[in-house]
Order: sequence, then C-alpha cells, then structure tokens
Amino acid sequence: MPMQTGLRTPAPGAIARARELAEPALRAAVATLHPLPRRMAAFSFGWCEADGTPGDSPGGKGVRQAFALLGAEAAGAPVGAAVQAAVAVELVHTFSLVHDDIMDGDERRRHRDAAWKAFGTGPAVLTGDALFALAVQTVAGAGGGHAGRAVAHLAESLGELVRGQADDLLFENRPWAGPEAVGLPEYEAMAARKTGALLGCALSLGPVLAGAPAPQADALMEAGRRLGVAFQAVDDLLGIWGDPYTTGKPVHSDLLRRKKTLPVLAAVARGGGATGRELTRLLGSDVPPDAAAAQHAAALVEAAGGRDFALAEAHRHAAAAQECLRGAGLAEDAAGELAALSAYLLERRL
Amino acid sequence: MPMQTGLRTPAPGAIARARELAEPALRAAVATLHPLPRRMAAFSFGWCEADGTPGDSPGGKGVRQAFALLGAEAAGAPVGAAVQAAVAVELVHTFSLVHDDIMDGDERRRHRDAAWKAFGTGPAVLTGDALFALAVQTVAGAGGGHAGRAVAHLAESLGELVRGQADDLLFENRPWAGPEAVGLPEYEAMAARKTGALLGCALSLGPVLAGAPAPQADALMEAGRRLGVAFQAVDDLLGIWGDPYTTGKPVHSDLLRRKKTLPVLAAVARGGGATGRELTRLLGSDVPPDAAAAQHAAALVEAAGGRDFALAEAHRHAAAAQECLRGAGLAEDAAGELAALSAYLLERRL
Repeated sequence: MPMQTGLRTPAPGAIARARELAEPALRAAVATLHPLPRRMAAFSFGWCEADGTPGDSPGGKGVRQAFALLGAEAAGAPVGAAVQAAVAVELVHTFSLVHDDIMDGDERRRHRDAAWKAFGTGPAVLTGDALFALAVQTVAGAGGGHAGRAVAHLAESLGELVRGQADDLLFENRPWAGPEAVGLPEYEAMAARKTGALLGCALSLGPVLAGAPAPQADALMEAGRRLGVAFQAVDDLLGIWGDPYTTGKPVHSDLLRRKKTLPVLAAVARGGGATGRELTRLLGSDVPPDAAAAQHAAALVEAAGGRDFALAEAHRHAAAAQECLRGAGLAEDAAGELAALSAYLLERRL
Repeated sequence: MPMQTGLRTPAPGAIARARELAEPALRAAVATLHPLPRRMAAFSFGWCEADGTPGDSPGGKGVRQAFALLGAEAAGAPVGAAVQAAVAVELVHTFSLVHDDIMDGDERRRHRDAAWKAFGTGPAVLTGDALFALAVQTVAGAGGGHAGRAVAHLAESLGELVRGQADDLLFENRPWAGPEAVGLPEYEAMAARKTGALLGCALSLGPVLAGAPAPQADALMEAGRRLGVAFQAVDDLLGIWGDPYTTGKPVHSDLLRRKKTLPVLAAVARGGGATGRELTRLLGSDVPPDAAAAQHAAALVEAAGGRDFALAEAHRHAAAAQECLRGAGLAEDAAGELAALSAYLLERRL
C-alpha cells in the first residue's frame, strides 16, 4: 500500500523566509548566464516552462537555501553571507540534479521532463557546467575577507558530492549478494557524500564566509552529512512505498528499476537465507521485474525487515544530526528552528 | 589537397620543462579522485588505455601547462604558483574536452575513442565534474595569500569558457545566410571565449596566485584570448584542409559535418552572391554532403577567399597577442620564450 503523505503541517517559516531573502539574488545570478543555459536553468528552477513561458511549477522546496539561512543565523553570520551561501548551494544543487538525471537516465523530475529530456543531453551537460561555474564565482566573489576559505570549503563539498555520485554509479554493477555485495555502512557512506555533503555545505558555508571557527564549521558539516543519510533513507522508502501522486513516479519504481537502496540491501543482508535468495533471484534475473514481481519483491523486503530498518536508520541519523548541532555552539533560537525544520522535512517526506 | 604538416621543428624546451615540472603534481592531484573518475581521467590524459593498462598515447601536448609556466616566470611568480596554475589549467582543459566531446557527439579524440564512447555518457559527465571540482580545489587550496583572488579569476575564466561553448552550440542552429547568419566578429568572440579564455587563464593564473597587479593579469588574459582566436582559425583550416593522418579525422571533416567555421563563414559573407548561394545550397541542403559535395564546397570556400581570410586572421590575432604581451611588463627572457612558443604552436599546426 502506498504511504500516506498525511495532513501537511504548514512549512516552517524558514523555508518561506529563505526564499524571500535569497531568490532575488539567485535570479540575479542566473540572469548573468548565457541565454542558452539561462533558459535551461530557469526551467530547472521551475521559473519557466521548456518553451520559455512563465512557469507555475513549484520547483524545489528550497531546503538548501533554508538550511543556509538558518546555519548562518545560528552561527551569528551577517545576512549577506547567508544570502551568498544560499545562492551558491541552490546553484550547486540544481547543477547536480541536471547532471544526475543524465547519469541515471531519469526522464522525469518534479512532474516534468528532466532538463536533458526537454533540451537534449549536450545542452544539459553545458547548463550543469554553467551553474557549477556560477556557484564558484558567487562564493569567490563574496566580500568579507573569508571568500578564499569559503570557496575551498565549497570545492571540497563538491568533490565529496561527485565522489558519492561515483559510488552510486559503481553500486549499479555490483552483485546483490556475496562478498562483492554493497554493505550497509558502505551504502550510508555513499549517501553521506551524495546527499549529505551539500546539506552540510549549506549549513556551514554562511558561517565560513563570516569567519566561523573550524570546529563549528566541522560540526555543521557533519550534521548535514548525517541528515543526508536520513533523507536518503526516507527517499529510498518512498522509492518503494511512496504515493505515486506525490513522488511523480510509479509505485515500486526503485524495484522496477532494480536500484540498490537501503531497504532492499538491508533485507538481503539481514533477511535470512530464504528471503535473501528469493529477493536476489527476483532482482538479479536477466528479465527486468514486471509490476507483479516488483510487488512481490516489496512484500519480501517488508517481511525481511528492510522497511523497518530503513525507517530506524532515518531516525538514528536524524538524531545524530541533532547531536552535532547541539555541540556546535549555536545561537539557541536559530538552532531550535534548524532542528524543527529537519524534523518537519523528515516527517513531511514520510 | 591536404595541408602539409612540414618538417617538425623540435618543440621548444618550455613544453618539456613544463611537463617535467607539473606532471608529478598533476598525477598526484588526479590520484586523489574516486577510482571511477580517476581511471577515466588517466585515460583522458593519455596515461592509460580504457582497460587501465599503461598507455603510450601521447595525450595532449601540454600547451596550457607550458603557458602557465612561462606566464608565471615572465611575471616573476615563484615556481610553486606556476605548478599550481599548470595543474589547474590542465585539469580544466581535460574537463572541457571530456564534456565537449559529449556535447558535440565527437566519437574520437587524439586517435582513440572519446571518453564518453569508451566509458559511457554518464561516467564521462561525472569525470568532467570531478576534474572541474579538483581544479577549483587545487587553486583554492594554494598557499601564498592570493588563493581567493586566483580562484575568482579561475571561476570567471570557466564561466567565459562555458559561454563560448554555449555560443558554439547555438551557432549550429543558425542559418548560413541572411540577417540571422553568424557574423565574423561574433564567431571570433566565441573563439576568444571557448578557446582563448583558458589560454588566458593559463598565462595569468600563476601571476595572480603570486599577487600580480591587475593590469598585468588583464594583459596576459587578453593575450590568451587573442591567441585563442588565432588557434581556432588554424584548427578551422585543418578541419577542412588538414592531413587526415595528423588530425585523425577524414579530409574535409568539418564540411562533411557542416560545421560553421571561420573559412566557410568568411566565404559565405565575403565571397559574393553566386559563390555564397552555391555554398549555402550545398551546406544548407536537407541531405548531408557526401565526399564529392564536401570537396566541391572546399573548392568554393577557397575560391571565395575563405582560406586566405582565416590564415590572415590567425596571423593578425597572433600579432595582437604579442602586442598584449609586450605591454604586460614581463621579464624579457620569459616573454621571448612565450612569443617563440606561440609562434611555434601556430606554425606546427599549419
């Protein structure tokens, strides 16, 4: 049965506030791009349709800019640093979505065509590159005397993100069982890089721009990594049991595509011999699973405890993130809002 | 008739010296990458074959690292800055080749498969991204107190490079004649970005890392842009009349692919009515030209003066580059070596 998305609690004010604060600067930055990547970037941000007509697509939620704003506030950074950080991480996030959809062959993104599907692979590669360069320009050009350290921090996070994507690509060719199978710690390390590095960068970039001490920046970075693992675990749950109306993807989509995700890896690794063998047979077959096979696989994953495990891991890593935040010497109000936003995002996804 | 590459004069010592100085640092930087992009990067640098066995492919000539070395020496920058600059520009150059081959659908590069052809489009996108991030990390992490300004300079050059590539992509869909045709100044502005920005960055990055005054960096940057136009003009000549043995591409390859290049645009724009109409008919036809049509087009371009024009432009922009270098307040020895290297590269290509 698809998960219920439940009644939506109103989005914490931080998301709306960050959008109000950062979006004008983000639009101004994107406006400096060459017309070709500019149009494609505007499409990817949900500001226009593929033909250039003004869009009413919601685009992303702006989670990263909200984290950038709250991270900066919590560390006492000035609003200018918060805005520069928010713009940079939204640019990097969109760069990574545009390129990831090419790498993963995903044709749909946020209920619309993926950028490469709408405009072609070549222009999508170029648009990602343009957004990447613009993000670096944004941070390198920030004032305040700490731009050099901040851009080194951004570049390191970018390297971590790319490394996570490379792990994920290699996982595809690994077997489902045996000594070469993807281990659970290895999977979570991938998620900490692929999903977590940019969240950590969002939390810490404003503070670094404002000259925050290294231990505080490190604690914010680590909080983001742990949140990344938690979010990835929830996305993996939605990839199997999510409501197609909300996810924009068919039910059991990750099983139909035989993606190696946390619930399935956990079910194979921990589900005992018979279930593991049956799952391995279903997912490792020469023939891609049909809807009935995917449904059967979902039932096996659930019976083997994979669903419960992923949910528990989401909670465990979210709690670890809160622990990092508590140790980061942050202003109490903003830190509380940060914790509330994280909890809201996890709950909302579930 | 294909151009003769002529007797090769020995490469100026600067190329060998730069390789000796920078390649260990470049290999050390690439060694820090994730195994997947590391293997693909090593292939792209010519250090190994696609299966990982040690390669004897010559790879690139290392022009950019030689310019980085000479630019730094001419501006009196320390050797450390020269090496960091050389590593960064070689990383960016290889990033741009890997992504450009995807965008242009080029299957061959330096007599081997292009990276996307050998490893797949997704992994090639990722490898470009990894090289891009590593280049930024290299400059951002450089010591000496000017890393912040240097990384801003690198990011700006990257933005210029991407903008040139975007121009080039859009040119493909423009008509050959009429008010929407690509103008000659517009074409050269594209080349100054796509080819010249990175040459300019190579010349100026070491000096910027060492705290060079802005006018000197600007003059070096502009010299690189002009050299880029000159090199592009020569590449365009080779794309039509180059010896297939040297270029690794069929004779008249740019005409077979109906690429908008300087000799052809000049022939259409300046060749007078009848020749222009005939060329437009040949290149704008619904049917791609066959070998005979490409040969006929080449003869028309030559008769209309397109070949002479491109050659004259190559010389004109190379001379302008030397003018920029003379105005940059450089050490005489190194500036002389820089001029000799530029002349050698142009002559060698022709």
